[in-house]
Amino acid sequence: MAGIGVHKRLLTLIDLAGTFVLAIHGASVAAAAGLDLLGIVVIALISAMGGGIMRDLLVGETPPEALRGWPLLSVALVGAALAMLFAHQVEDIPEWPLIVIDALGLSLLAVAAAEKALEYKLTPIAAVLMAAIGGCGGGALRDVLLNEVPAVLRTDFLATAAIAGAAVLVIARRSGLPPGWAALAGGLTCGVLRLVAVWQGWQLPHL
Amino acid sequence: MAGIGVHKRLLTLIDLAGTFVLAIHGASVAAAAGLDLLGIVVIALISAMGGGIMRDLLVGETPPEALRGWPLLSVALVGAALAMLFAHQVEDIPEWPLIVIDALGLSLLAVAAAEKALEYKLTPIAAVLMAAIGGCGGGALRDVLLNEVPAVLRTDFLATAAIAGAAVLVIARRSGLPPGWAALAGGLTCGVLRLVAVWQGWQLPHL
Amino acid sequence: MAGIGVHKRLLTLIDLAGTFVLAIHGASVAAAAGLDLLGIVVIALISAMGGGIMRDLLVGETPPEALRGWPLLSVALVGAALAMLFAHQVEDIPEWPLIVIDALGLSLLAVAAAEKALEYKLTPIAAVLMAAIGGCGGGALRDVLLNEVPAVLRTDFLATAAIAGAAVLVIARRSGLPPGWAALAGGLTCGVLRLVAVWQGWQLPHL
Repeated sequence: MAGIGVHKRLLTLIDLAGTFVLAIHGASVAAAAGLDLLGIVVIALISAMGGGIMRDLLVGETPPEALRGWPLLSVALVGAALAMLFAHQVEDIPEWPLIVIDALGLSLLAVAAAEKALEYKLTPIAAVLMAAIGGCGGGALRDVLLNEVPAVLRTDFLATAAIAGAAVLVIARRSGLPPGWAALAGGLTCGVLRLVAVWQGWQLPHL
Repeated sequence: MAGIGVHKRLLTLIDLAGTFVLAIHGASVAAAAGLDLLGIVVIALISAMGGGIMRDLLVGETPPEALRGWPLLSVALVGAALAMLFAHQVEDIPEWPLIVIDALGLSLLAVAAAEKALEYKLTPIAAVLMAAIGGCGGGALRDVLLNEVPAVLRTDFLATAAIAGAAVLVIARRSGLPPGWAALAGGLTCGVLRLVAVWQGWQLPHL
Repeated sequence: MAGIGVHKRLLTLIDLAGTFVLAIHGASVAAAAGLDLLGIVVIALISAMGGGIMRDLLVGETPPEALRGWPLLSVALVGAALAMLFAHQVEDIPEWPLIVIDALGLSLLAVAAAEKALEYKLTPIAAVLMAAIGGCGGGALRDVLLNEVPAVLRTDFLATAAIAGAAVLVIARRSGLPPGWAALAGGLTCGVLRLVAVWQGWQLPHL
């Protein structure tokens, strides 16, 4: 009973942290694409909450978490505001903090989506798919709105990391690991894979 | 009791009128983009009903209003047909009727979405967001399908008007104004802001 | 009672077959567009299951069939894998098998969507719309992700065939034909119309 409560609270925290970092990332991309103030906020919200909203619509949890209560929406708005405040400094900053932030957001949201899929009794393979949707869906939606083929489909090693992380999480849960440790193992797998992939320039083969 | 019934009927009427004018607008845009007959009808339907469908999916009201019963769909189809019949005259007509129609549709659908969000007990800030989605979602979807970055994200003063109108509506409701007057105040705010913005060439700042 | 069971099983079979052929078609298009391995699989899944997922979200059946249980997802993955294995031979093959496969998938999914819409008590006109969404939605989503105006809106005689087939199905059901025969009549109408349209270069008029 208490374990479930702790686990729920952990999930909420994971979701909030992932949302925050993805809002910062999204706002930076939108500002660079020359959108106006509203466009930047919308793209930040969509980058941050789009994957989670798709996830919730697919499992049938409506209204989606992002629109119920204040926390997620506030955190995304604060992230967008911070990114806008420091937008002009961003050009002087090396690229790597954005990459780390992005990897962190990906891991957090992929784990949150896999957890929710299992909670809704989806099959393990559907849970792995949902991790890819939860982790990369917001970014893909952002790319579509900016009129680009989603980076995740072309060259990025994003969804592959989310899928690998979710697979580790599912297998760890099945092997009897406590949910918290399974989530940690999955998240680490996803984040480390993503960072190494960027560092080494890993790409999936093209046909 | 009677008040609720009247309010419900008012909402339905607002939805129908907004759908009608947005279908006309959507069909005009699609014809100008060189789509075929089916494409024009589809884009008209999506412009008119896309925002409402997103709104209904997000609050979890399925099937969405647009697909339940005849009224909304019929009204959208009639709007599309009218736009096609007069398509060739459209070039000789000054641009302002389309702009007024668009502002009217925006106000009506933004108000309808904010009302529905409150009915589903979303938070006030989520209701304001939903007004932007309900009012601008169909147009954004149309732009994405026509392979453009949604105008609402680049330069248009559309969502800002919807957000301001919904904020007025929410505040008026909270201040104890009857729902009908609150809706009127919100809709007027949205529509007037939109028209003044077009007239004066208002734009949000870019970073 | 037995009739309902048989009909349900028939529906499932139709859905599986349509999913399989559309996954093959989607993977071929994605490989030609130069996506990486993951992108090809994702586009194949979306081509195959996107229309069905939209259909299920719209009628409020969540999680959508495609994410419940193994069959649909496995069949789509096998289709994508086959298409990739034979990708290099595809250039030597005449174009017509792909066209026939595509027409088959369209018919199957249009019929499945119309059936589901009737099962959920949507109006006949909404059922016809749902057939267009179920049959062409996955392909339209694929085109949007590949950054193109959906072919279905520009020149293709796809949705028109789906709409005609669904209309035949609905009328046949209303006339008292057994569901199985009504589905067959609708599917044949759709598939034959599509094939003749490709063969004769039929296009809808532009304004």
